[in-house]
Amino acid sequence: MINDRLKKQLDFMIEIDKVKEIIRMTYIASGNRRENDAEHSWHLAVMTFLFSEYIDDDVDITKVMKMVLIHDLVEIYAGDTFAFDEKGYEDKEERERNAAEKLFSILPEDQYKEFKGLWEEFEECQTKEAKYGAMLDRLQPLVLNYVVGGGSWKDNNISAEQVYKRNEITLKEGPEEFKEIINFVVNECLEKGYIKK
Amino acid sequence: MINDRLKKQLDFMIEIDKVKEIIRMTYIASGNRRENDAEHSWHLAVMTFLFSEYIDDDVDITKVMKMVLIHDLVEIYAGDTFAFDEKGYEDKEERERNAAEKLFSILPEDQYKEFKGLWEEFEECQTKEAKYGAMLDRLQPLVLNYVVGGGSWKDNNISAEQVYKRNEITLKEGPEEFKEIINFVVNECLEKGYIKK
Repeated sequence: MINDRLKKQLDFMIEIDKVKEIIRMTYIASGNRRENDAEHSWHLAVMTFLFSEYIDDDVDITKVMKMVLIHDLVEIYAGDTFAFDEKGYEDKEERERNAAEKLFSILPEDQYKEFKGLWEEFEECQTKEAKYGAMLDRLQPLVLNYVVGGGSWKDNNISAEQVYKRNEITLKEGPEEFKEIINFVVNECLEKGYIKK
Repeated sequence: MINDRLKKQLDFMIEIDKVKEIIRMTYIASGNRRENDAEHSWHLAVMTFLFSEYIDDDVDITKVMKMVLIHDLVEIYAGDTFAFDEKGYEDKEERERNAAEKLFSILPEDQYKEFKGLWEEFEECQTKEAKYGAMLDRLQPLVLNYVVGGGSWKDNNISAEQVYKRNEITLKEGPEEFKEIINFVVNECLEKGYIKK
């Protein structure tokens, strides 16, 4: 019947379903409701290969897809921290580290290491793969906020400076095409009054 | 500024956001509501690498991830067809083919070919990659239906025979471990009265 290893993998598959109920600040493009972490992660994974031509050939796209698919799973226990919530960010690292330990421990030992390793690499944001993932993680809500007419930026009275700061890694190290999207969106949103000067 | 190619990719990224509002029959594991296609596709993509040890080494896991991430996008225009809806299946192929044409045409020509090719390969279900994706696509709702106590099976008075038929490809060609999951779930659900004999 179902052996111990397979049972652990099934338990993990069922436990991570909870990420479908972790609600983010960002709205879906129709504006009908906020999106959840599973939807957000799905969107990033598609963007990983949709925009891969803008990234160096030696970037391991498969690894980026895996990272973005699991990067928010820790929020099942640690909750979502809004990108512009300075107070929430104070203990974010510790909360998420404990959550990662708890969640990935459900897996068999070798997969615990693999999944936790992917999550840590994404968090540390030092490798090319982690950086590409981080850029997409910031680009996706930026585009959605623009499409819905301000969205979570408007709700929280966010400024252009804060948006630029949030996308710092892309503006410093990202491809020209991503910088063009950021500049286009910020300029349009300033003009339309969706964000503050 | 944003050139024609990048504009098409952005338009596609925004258009596919609609898949977050295509509701499936399957409930999420908490039973709180039905899941949508984006959440379902995210779950399949994680399962692709979570269960990859059970699949032949020569299966291109990256391709499977891409396929499962986009396999339901056609439902943005064609709608979701319940797996056990025989009438809905009569014109499903034509509806979905037209939808694929409309949706993937948003992309630049080379990516139109890539994405449409991935979708067609998944639909035709002949390659090892498409078959692995198809097995996961049937395994995920099977596990969720069990976890929520019958779910869409109970709602629709589904029989064990129908569940076996739906998972035919796995029972014929899939790994032993997947067969064990299917047999375990069907037996448990029969015992608990979640499905008919």
